[in-house]
Amino acid sequence: MRQTRTTLFFATRGPGMHDITAAIDRWLHQEQAGLGVLTLFCRHTSASLVIQENADPDVTRDLTGFLDQLVPERGMAFRHVSEGSDDMPAHVKTALTGVSLAIPVADGRMDLGAWQGVFLCEHRRHPHQRQIVAHFMGD
Amino acid sequence: MRQTRTTLFFATRGPGMHDITAAIDRWLHQEQAGLGVLTLFCRHTSASLVIQENADPDVTRDLTGFLDQLVPERGMAFRHVSEGSDDMPAHVKTALTGVSLAIPVADGRMDLGAWQGVFLCEHRRHPHQRQIVAHFMGD
Amino acid sequence: MRQTRTTLFFATRGPGMHDITAAIDRWLHQEQAGLGVLTLFCRHTSASLVIQENADPDVTRDLTGFLDQLVPERGMAFRHVSEGSDDMPAHVKTALTGVSLAIPVADGRMDLGAWQGVFLCEHRRHPHQRQIVAHFMGD
Repeated sequence: MRQTRTTLFFATRGPGMHDITAAIDRWLHQEQAGLGVLTLFCRHTSASLVIQENADPDVTRDLTGFLDQLVPERGMAFRHVSEGSDDMPAHVKTALTGVSLAIPVADGRMDLGAWQGVFLCEHRRHPHQRQIVAHFMGD
Repeated sequence: MRQTRTTLFFATRGPGMHDITAAIDRWLHQEQAGLGVLTLFCRHTSASLVIQENADPDVTRDLTGFLDQLVPERGMAFRHVSEGSDDMPAHVKTALTGVSLAIPVADGRMDLGAWQGVFLCEHRRHPHQRQIVAHFMGD
Repeated sequence: MRQTRTTLFFATRGPGMHDITAAIDRWLHQEQAGLGVLTLFCRHTSASLVIQENADPDVTRDLTGFLDQLVPERGMAFRHVSEGSDDMPAHVKTALTGVSLAIPVADGRMDLGAWQGVFLCEHRRHPHQRQIVAHFMGD
């Protein structure tokens, strides 16, 4: 049993879901991971981590659209508005979708289902540099 | 420190929350788990894992009803409709409730509260065979 | 590689988000944690664990207000009402925000972003004694 970790950086350019599955797979391969658990952690309060379908891009577009409708920028009586009208909705979307994932690893790969991908969800309008901590523990 | 894993299969017959606590407890017992962490991972994008009250069945019925009301099949302007009108709502419900759980294990059992159970939430109408990866790491 | 665990107790006095970051940091320090993974688990079905901004208190107030609006006590046709009108909304809020977190630990501290704190979210009106299991595995 051993452990290894890194910080992965992703540049985002506005709201949407970015498939980061390949980047994580590359890191696991480079670290010669075998059997274990991968912990992914998004170090932000206005971006989140979601596992969703990676086949039809309409799925992530529809999910982003649903969240926009659920947490609109106008008409919510938010008090935290000093950082822009998209900031507090971004915090809410992050709280609802989460920043932490524990994913089993087998034969050096995340044991995802056939249609699952790991997505970094950017909830802010302006470009951001986002950090995801990846920690592997196992053999 | 050691690790062990399996895939548990559950047949679902329509939307609802299925208590899978006993099946997980049986597996932990069979693997002679002691102290450690259990990672549970649902390998699907239209079914999820939720910890909720296992006493009054009205709680899971009300929760399912709430999600139906929050993400209705009609009137959402979803583009991803080719797999049925219940598919995109199922993806949204899965994103909101999650597919990954990390649960402390003590004395060979999940350290759940008195009223907590682990539920597989089926969000599709048609019967499905669902896979949950269970991974134990510890002593 | 080793593991250690405890149960942390927090007294709540009505709905809101309680920053428990310092209490967790103290426990990690006391256990001489180095590199590893911290699992946090809330043993309740009407209180949850959320990572959110710890700078402007308006953020947690706005998040609490959003959840109140999303899951109102009246007009939802809930059947589970015997434990009070705030009970079923508390179950729904808990299901949406979650009870389980996996957090990477480096140099003895949770590897949180600059603005992230760990919050215990109380969703019931009456005072409660809440239990959070903290489990550290690593070096």
